[in-house]
Amino acid sequence: MGLNTFGHLFRITTFGESHGAGIGVVIDGCPSGLPLDEEFIQQELDRRKPGQSRIVTQRKESDSCIIQSGVFEGVTTGSPISMYIPNEDQKSADYEHIAHVFRPSHADYTWSAKYGTRDYRGGGRSSARETAARVAAGAIAKLLLNKHKISISAYVSQVGEISIPSDWNGSLETIEENAVRCPHPVTAENMERLILDVRKAGDTIGGKVSCVIQGCPPGLGQPVFGKLQADLAAAMMGINAAKGFEYGSGFEAIKMRGSQHNDAFYTENGLVKTRTNFSGGIQGGISNGMPITFHVAFKPVATIMQEQLTVDDSGQEAIAKGKGRHDPCVVPRAVPIVEAMAALVIADHILLMRSDKLSL
Amino acid sequence: MGLNTFGHLFRITTFGESHGAGIGVVIDGCPSGLPLDEEFIQQELDRRKPGQSRIVTQRKESDSCIIQSGVFEGVTTGSPISMYIPNEDQKSADYEHIAHVFRPSHADYTWSAKYGTRDYRGGGRSSARETAARVAAGAIAKLLLNKHKISISAYVSQVGEISIPSDWNGSLETIEENAVRCPHPVTAENMERLILDVRKAGDTIGGKVSCVIQGCPPGLGQPVFGKLQADLAAAMMGINAAKGFEYGSGFEAIKMRGSQHNDAFYTENGLVKTRTNFSGGIQGGISNGMPITFHVAFKPVATIMQEQLTVDDSGQEAIAKGKGRHDPCVVPRAVPIVEAMAALVIADHILLMRSDKLSL
Amino acid sequence: MGLNTFGHLFRITTFGESHGAGIGVVIDGCPSGLPLDEEFIQQELDRRKPGQSRIVTQRKESDSCIIQSGVFEGVTTGSPISMYIPNEDQKSADYEHIAHVFRPSHADYTWSAKYGTRDYRGGGRSSARETAARVAAGAIAKLLLNKHKISISAYVSQVGEISIPSDWNGSLETIEENAVRCPHPVTAENMERLILDVRKAGDTIGGKVSCVIQGCPPGLGQPVFGKLQADLAAAMMGINAAKGFEYGSGFEAIKMRGSQHNDAFYTENGLVKTRTNFSGGIQGGISNGMPITFHVAFKPVATIMQEQLTVDDSGQEAIAKGKGRHDPCVVPRAVPIVEAMAALVIADHILLMRSDKLSL
Amino acid sequence: MGLNTFGHLFRITTFGESHGAGIGVVIDGCPSGLPLDEEFIQQELDRRKPGQSRIVTQRKESDSCIIQSGVFEGVTTGSPISMYIPNEDQKSADYEHIAHVFRPSHADYTWSAKYGTRDYRGGGRSSARETAARVAAGAIAKLLLNKHKISISAYVSQVGEISIPSDWNGSLETIEENAVRCPHPVTAENMERLILDVRKAGDTIGGKVSCVIQGCPPGLGQPVFGKLQADLAAAMMGINAAKGFEYGSGFEAIKMRGSQHNDAFYTENGLVKTRTNFSGGIQGGISNGMPITFHVAFKPVATIMQEQLTVDDSGQEAIAKGKGRHDPCVVPRAVPIVEAMAALVIADHILLMRSDKLSL
Repeated sequence: MGLNTFGHLFRITTFGESHGAGIGVVIDGCPSGLPLDEEFIQQELDRRKPGQSRIVTQRKESDSCIIQSGVFEGVTTGSPISMYIPNEDQKSADYEHIAHVFRPSHADYTWSAKYGTRDYRGGGRSSARETAARVAAGAIAKLLLNKHKISISAYVSQVGEISIPSDWNGSLETIEENAVRCPHPVTAENMERLILDVRKAGDTIGGKVSCVIQGCPPGLGQPVFGKLQADLAAAMMGINAAKGFEYGSGFEAIKMRGSQHNDAFYTENGLVKTRTNFSGGIQGGISNGMPITFHVAFKPVATIMQEQLTVDDSGQEAIAKGKGRHDPCVVPRAVPIVEAMAALVIADHILLMRSDKLSL
Repeated sequence: MGLNTFGHLFRITTFGESHGAGIGVVIDGCPSGLPLDEEFIQQELDRRKPGQSRIVTQRKESDSCIIQSGVFEGVTTGSPISMYIPNEDQKSADYEHIAHVFRPSHADYTWSAKYGTRDYRGGGRSSARETAARVAAGAIAKLLLNKHKISISAYVSQVGEISIPSDWNGSLETIEENAVRCPHPVTAENMERLILDVRKAGDTIGGKVSCVIQGCPPGLGQPVFGKLQADLAAAMMGINAAKGFEYGSGFEAIKMRGSQHNDAFYTENGLVKTRTNFSGGIQGGISNGMPITFHVAFKPVATIMQEQLTVDDSGQEAIAKGKGRHDPCVVPRAVPIVEAMAALVIADHILLMRSDKLSL
Repeated sequence: MGLNTFGHLFRITTFGESHGAGIGVVIDGCPSGLPLDEEFIQQELDRRKPGQSRIVTQRKESDSCIIQSGVFEGVTTGSPISMYIPNEDQKSADYEHIAHVFRPSHADYTWSAKYGTRDYRGGGRSSARETAARVAAGAIAKLLLNKHKISISAYVSQVGEISIPSDWNGSLETIEENAVRCPHPVTAENMERLILDVRKAGDTIGGKVSCVIQGCPPGLGQPVFGKLQADLAAAMMGINAAKGFEYGSGFEAIKMRGSQHNDAFYTENGLVKTRTNFSGGIQGGISNGMPITFHVAFKPVATIMQEQLTVDDSGQEAIAKGKGRHDPCVVPRAVPIVEAMAALVIADHILLMRSDKLSL
Repeated sequence: MGLNTFGHLFRITTFGESHGAGIGVVIDGCPSGLPLDEEFIQQELDRRKPGQSRIVTQRKESDSCIIQSGVFEGVTTGSPISMYIPNEDQKSADYEHIAHVFRPSHADYTWSAKYGTRDYRGGGRSSARETAARVAAGAIAKLLLNKHKISISAYVSQVGEISIPSDWNGSLETIEENAVRCPHPVTAENMERLILDVRKAGDTIGGKVSCVIQGCPPGLGQPVFGKLQADLAAAMMGINAAKGFEYGSGFEAIKMRGSQHNDAFYTENGLVKTRTNFSGGIQGGISNGMPITFHVAFKPVATIMQEQLTVDDSGQEAIAKGKGRHDPCVVPRAVPIVEAMAALVIADHILLMRSDKLSL
């Protein structure tokens, strides 16, 4: 049970390594009758792909997605949808020098300890390249959610010490207007400058991605182990470099009183709403119809262009130094990945909800 | 698919409501040959049970656990282990006044929206009483982990603004010596005083539980969707009132440089170790043999002894006011729940790891 | 992963041993809003329980079912439904003489080899007593199917050499009118006489149960691994003593030509039907709206009242001789079990079907 | 939940349609360290592929398998293994005439009823072409079983009325020596002649495949819903055209007495064995170390070269007549499919067994 499958009813199984033939995903459980907008899928992949701006890795991949099954005359049939993204610009030679060295804070050592063998080229299966497959699948989940008038917007809210002003309440429509994917233009500029400085120093830096899901009906999520926040947390903590997850008030709730934190209900046009949203749109594990909000912390990328003391696979001291092409900060490219994983969770619960009641 | 089952190979299914006949759990996948220390299971339940100190709810439940199956002559047989905890002190009358009122930040509204019906007595299935079943199951997972020399210690690290000093590095053996379950005695006293003050004001307060897992072999966790931190996050975010999860450096990683954050490897007595542990014992989703560390944020309990404006199930304005017996702060009793869920995750991955390699 | 759970969306987990405290089941995934007719559940259990006639085991069990959760004011809430059936008449002393002996064609040896230990009392978990839990769960599945106007009727079609005439096409309403549960009265009498003769000789005999499911909509079943016949086969072959499964034409199809076997379509009142039903109501793994028909072969019960040469758990020759109370023929009591398992499969696929299409 | 995944720990997910781009499979859960003999995988595919003899369909497919992931330097890494088989000789035009016609005893009607749309070309996802993916995956399962000294041999035991003499006890090594895959040469000749006659008449015929699994350790299988025969039955009944499954004595057990049917235990060289094997190597759902034997009934292929009265998707009467290239009898090509599915089940239970006991 390799656990390369994600989801309950809308399930994806990904495969492929960073420097193998390619990366792919099989979606099982996508309902029939969904028109498949291939251009949109490619756009989503383009948002994640390397080489798209000067603050990300310069590996050149077109990330062209081939749909191999499950679609007939442009519409899903209910059969598994397989998508394949060939690798084009793998430079395995960049990794031969670390075939026996355990790079600090990478998966080299743990993978070797686990499997007794590993594909050392570019991190193999542990590479964030695998997330391309998730973005492709997430694009289809988004097409499904569009039909339910649900939208998902993630953005970079912090890089290092620089964060969007806490009282900011602007539009999310500008997210894609800068390379950082921060909707606050001034902050975006500062973030970009910081990332370039860090890269120049051969270093990397952490960041935070925030996400808002709008249009969810009340009733998504299962009350005990399938709480919506639990599935979202698993989805987010399954992304490479993620270190923390919080929803609604998150870690701030620790300091709050119940009288502050409780979200008062009221009705508007026959809909039940809350005046505040510390609940982050989820109560008792179930969506309440308010926007779902959450944040994900990402660590600085482990590959730095500096010499680091480490050990090799025979236990001897060794030096690791980054070679190849890497991101100085993961969050700009993490934005579409966070959205994709969120879309997969919500699409899954849309289908799960269909079995809640005796009569639909 | 109600998702009342947790785990891949070591699986638990819980059932029962706060004010029904009782609460229970079926464990499927516990290996045969484990001596079952019933006294230990009861001790774990006693750590979670209500009425154990003056800072928790005064509901009186002995939480006596009846083992119904899966054990023969004191040893597990490989068959499902069913455990049942009868409810004794349910006072359903305390809830009749809220049968039609949606209490703020409770699951009342979302549950009604989802299922079209609900057991309003004490939160029904959404009550934290359900976690007693998890603690019973977690106790058996702990017995399994003991055989692998793995230990789990959770403790309260923050209540409101009061937290253990950040440079503290003391013993965890004093956790159970105070009602708050904070291993730093002075901080514990301050926390307890704060909780009592808050309760006196008819209010509630949030807190943080930290956890350390020691003795894990390298190799636990699966590299993609079954990352150890993803399963831990799902486990923790499935606990009532949890708002955030982070492991290792967590949200602090956002501000760090890669050169600071990377954990340098070295060898000691033939074992690979890291000089720092910002990775929190997990790299690439797989344990590296260092202590696994994580933190869980909990919100203030939603039931407060104050009048709150809300709506009822016909959409009319209504007043909610807490009645009955409730916790002013959830974290002291959350400690054994966090440990139980962590134990379930680790036991599950201990079994999963047995299929990693062709030869064991 | 003990695999004590059955089903995809409508899932049951059973627990308990023949001579332990009791037998139980947790149903997870039953939709909310289903009125729970407890009397009906008990009736179904009574059809399976021991001691109901002179041709079955004389163990005395009332098989009274206690519903522990998931129901509020007589209606399902969407929460797990736990049902418990205490054991009352276990006579463990009947089994002490075989604690170390491997009874021929029982699970004694295989269980010991697998788990290194076993609960030898009455077969422990391997006893058909476990199926009481399935019948209780199946009763709830039947209540769900009633709402969809689907009915399930199983009956004994063969005992030893005696079978219902192949050209018989009578009513299934008489099934419960005799102890054998054969709807053809003359055959039923012959079967009963045979069973009594066999028992008098200290022997046992095999039989066949046939089943018809009426009222299924077209569209149940998934086209590849979730074929309706695959799930039904797994359900039936999971019943103790089952040796074979066939649906529609079954093993007779081996001798047929395609031109004979193909079921011609026609329409009647706007419904698509087939003139023959060699397909047994399933084509390509999916129900076609015609009656679903299948047959299950059962072996003679392994416990006979004769001395048999065998070995004990130290590998020494030993004598096994049946003691206690046993069925001379399993099929009369297998009828409600076959119905229960069929009901669970169909209820599960009714829920699965809700996710087939984009729009319901 | 499209149920295109099979297995518990050793899991395969297949995708692809008969006349789409290709067919594929992702294996998740294959342990690391298994040398992958690509030639063997291709040989297995060649045994199933069309056009291999004059008694099977003449569609020309090389069925060349491309391994896309999960292997490094010829050895499995523990990552998902993706295999892809491009379609080469699809002639979709052969199917345009039946785009709106429901062919008798095909999945045309049921698929349309289920999904509201279908890929009518060559049966789309319902085509037996999908089983190529299973054979590729099964080949890897066989490589795993080889390491455990387990071997699987299936063969044709009956075609129409012609079957291997019941007292035959010859070698299985001659199975591949004739086009029918029947190890009894005289019977094989008769079968082949019958199949050719049937095809000449534009008709098709049913058959039976028998299978023997040798070398299984005692202890495979789980005692309740995961009985080895239940998983094997699901595996076999999930193969296109399968109508029945029986193991050991199978349907013959109906007529037997317990005193005949019970398999007496004895020990030989310290191993527990049985003198007869009516149990088919499985007792209480768990392997006992004796050869596992089972039989699968297959119906005559639904596509016949004769005119058949049917209806179209508007409910009007229509004529269906087979066009294109089809098998007159499915069993010769079903042999490698039966073996593949059996191998997947056994490999899965080999891994499941690793979690049975506390100590390995």
